[in-house]
Amino acid sequence: MNRRTCLAGVVATIFGSVQLTAARGADDPLPSWNDTDAKTSIIAFVEKVTAKDGPDYVPPAERIAVFDNDGTLWAEQPAYFQLLFALDRVREMAPQHPEWKTTEPFKSALAGDMQGLMATGMEGLAKILSASHADISAEEFAAAAGDWLATAKHPTTGMRYAEMVYQPMLELLAYLRANEFKTFIVSGGGIDFLRVFAEQTYGIPPEQVVGSSIAAKYEMRNGVPTIVKQAEGLFVDDKEGKPVGIYRHIGRRPIFAAGNSDGDFQMLQYTTIPRAEGDNSPRLGLIVHHTDAGREFAYDRDSHIGKLDRGLTEAKPRGWVVIDMKQDWKTIFPKRD
Amino acid sequence: MNRRTCLAGVVATIFGSVQLTAARGADDPLPSWNDTDAKTSIIAFVEKVTAKDGPDYVPPAERIAVFDNDGTLWAEQPAYFQLLFALDRVREMAPQHPEWKTTEPFKSALAGDMQGLMATGMEGLAKILSASHADISAEEFAAAAGDWLATAKHPTTGMRYAEMVYQPMLELLAYLRANEFKTFIVSGGGIDFLRVFAEQTYGIPPEQVVGSSIAAKYEMRNGVPTIVKQAEGLFVDDKEGKPVGIYRHIGRRPIFAAGNSDGDFQMLQYTTIPRAEGDNSPRLGLIVHHTDAGREFAYDRDSHIGKLDRGLTEAKPRGWVVIDMKQDWKTIFPKRD
Repeated sequence: MNRRTCLAGVVATIFGSVQLTAARGADDPLPSWNDTDAKTSIIAFVEKVTAKDGPDYVPPAERIAVFDNDGTLWAEQPAYFQLLFALDRVREMAPQHPEWKTTEPFKSALAGDMQGLMATGMEGLAKILSASHADISAEEFAAAAGDWLATAKHPTTGMRYAEMVYQPMLELLAYLRANEFKTFIVSGGGIDFLRVFAEQTYGIPPEQVVGSSIAAKYEMRNGVPTIVKQAEGLFVDDKEGKPVGIYRHIGRRPIFAAGNSDGDFQMLQYTTIPRAEGDNSPRLGLIVHHTDAGREFAYDRDSHIGKLDRGLTEAKPRGWVVIDMKQDWKTIFPKRD
Repeated sequence: MNRRTCLAGVVATIFGSVQLTAARGADDPLPSWNDTDAKTSIIAFVEKVTAKDGPDYVPPAERIAVFDNDGTLWAEQPAYFQLLFALDRVREMAPQHPEWKTTEPFKSALAGDMQGLMATGMEGLAKILSASHADISAEEFAAAAGDWLATAKHPTTGMRYAEMVYQPMLELLAYLRANEFKTFIVSGGGIDFLRVFAEQTYGIPPEQVVGSSIAAKYEMRNGVPTIVKQAEGLFVDDKEGKPVGIYRHIGRRPIFAAGNSDGDFQMLQYTTIPRAEGDNSPRLGLIVHHTDAGREFAYDRDSHIGKLDRGLTEAKPRGWVVIDMKQDWKTIFPKRD
């Protein structure tokens, strides 16, 4: 058993309850969803594309479903979890980098001064991500991310991050797979970070994870084949990058897409807009709208994280289903045994 | 039905016989293989990793098998088929580019002067590939490649290119899948070119094809979401690039790899070398050795295409199985009904 498998085991042990919960409810495929339009639309779509003799039948090989991650499958407030991981990692690495105490963006990051950090802009953020994600072997990175996920706790809920996944979305993933859909993550988050927990948490294997990435290099290190992450060649799998990521990784247009922010707008376009006149093939776009300040968070048009503005305005004319978390979901996070 | 689906249908009709042939022989999973060491090694490996209570059991999710394409799944002489496609495409586009008549590498390409073309080196080749593969939408490219595959014929055999696949390898792919392996192509060839025929010809869906690629851009063209291939951002999925492509696309180390040239050396290393001391997890590396000048082609250490030198020298000490096409394969190409 290698270290990665071992970590996956740890994550599995901690979050095993999540999967178990998702498997319940044999009669109702979406037991954590209220009987509102959102649920009805999803079930109608799945029944339509799987009806063998129906006009909208889609063969299994073409049942590609793509899901954003941050804000769609798990929470993203008060900041993307991967950024919190990067900051923790910078803190951990600081003793080896005494110069960070006096150089931005590290100075602000180490002082926990989020405003100061934000003031360093995208360039500062890039330096934090580079310091925490590059010049490290793929296995070392996976180990670091796995350790963090197994131990770190969310600043306001006190939950572990991989517990802050949405129970209704776990059910949706399982329901689609039970109907021979192939489920993919297509996230602005880093592909290597996602792969550490996607299989155990969502049942999505590494080869079905699409995300942002940096270049990598292959080399032999002490006789062991090693992949080393490089501080260059950034591909941003967000906005216009999502259809490109889908095209490059999946090579087939999805028939189902779920997102929650304007970063998912192009993915929803790419999935749902007919390619040619007369193309009436069935397609479904979903937007998770964060409306539940009591049970989770409420934010949309003016949010710094997960801003949903254009998508909210255009969802109706485009036929995308908007999920109102407060109204449509019975539960938000999985119950722990 | 969109144009791409339609083309897939055409390819399916033409090469349907290939799939049928692969499905025969229920008792012997590899009927086109002679009963030599190569076959024995493959079957022993598959039985070992699928034996539920055995010490070498590998769960299905980790049964990742990667295959090179050129020279491993289909032929590659007298030149990579994709290069022949590029040259045909340049010829087709020439009327719109009168300047090509007097500019290299196009001048040599149009004159069919392969020596002149080779003299333009990698730079000339890059120009041919760029002219024939970039500044075109993904769908237009797939249509062009599909048309070519459906009509063009190999210069010496007169066969269509997708008929020049190796029947024993089709059986091997099917055998692995029947044993819950997930089969991937990991090729130096272009990912978009491969995806046009991989599903119909090999049963490998687009999302399981890894190949060389160029950058792509997403844009709306007359209201239709469009991916446009760019003449930049080349990723070469060959040699050191293969482990990087596997890592990026699959995110999991294969347990089985098959190649035929030194371009596959690093992929075979990455697949078969233990990561840590005491790691005895089962792994299999295969090299297809082209030894059959009568039924196919014979070449290895000195070949311009598909050079196999280091791999041939190191196969034995590394425990890789060398397939001798002449001795080990009963048939080379699928019989046509």
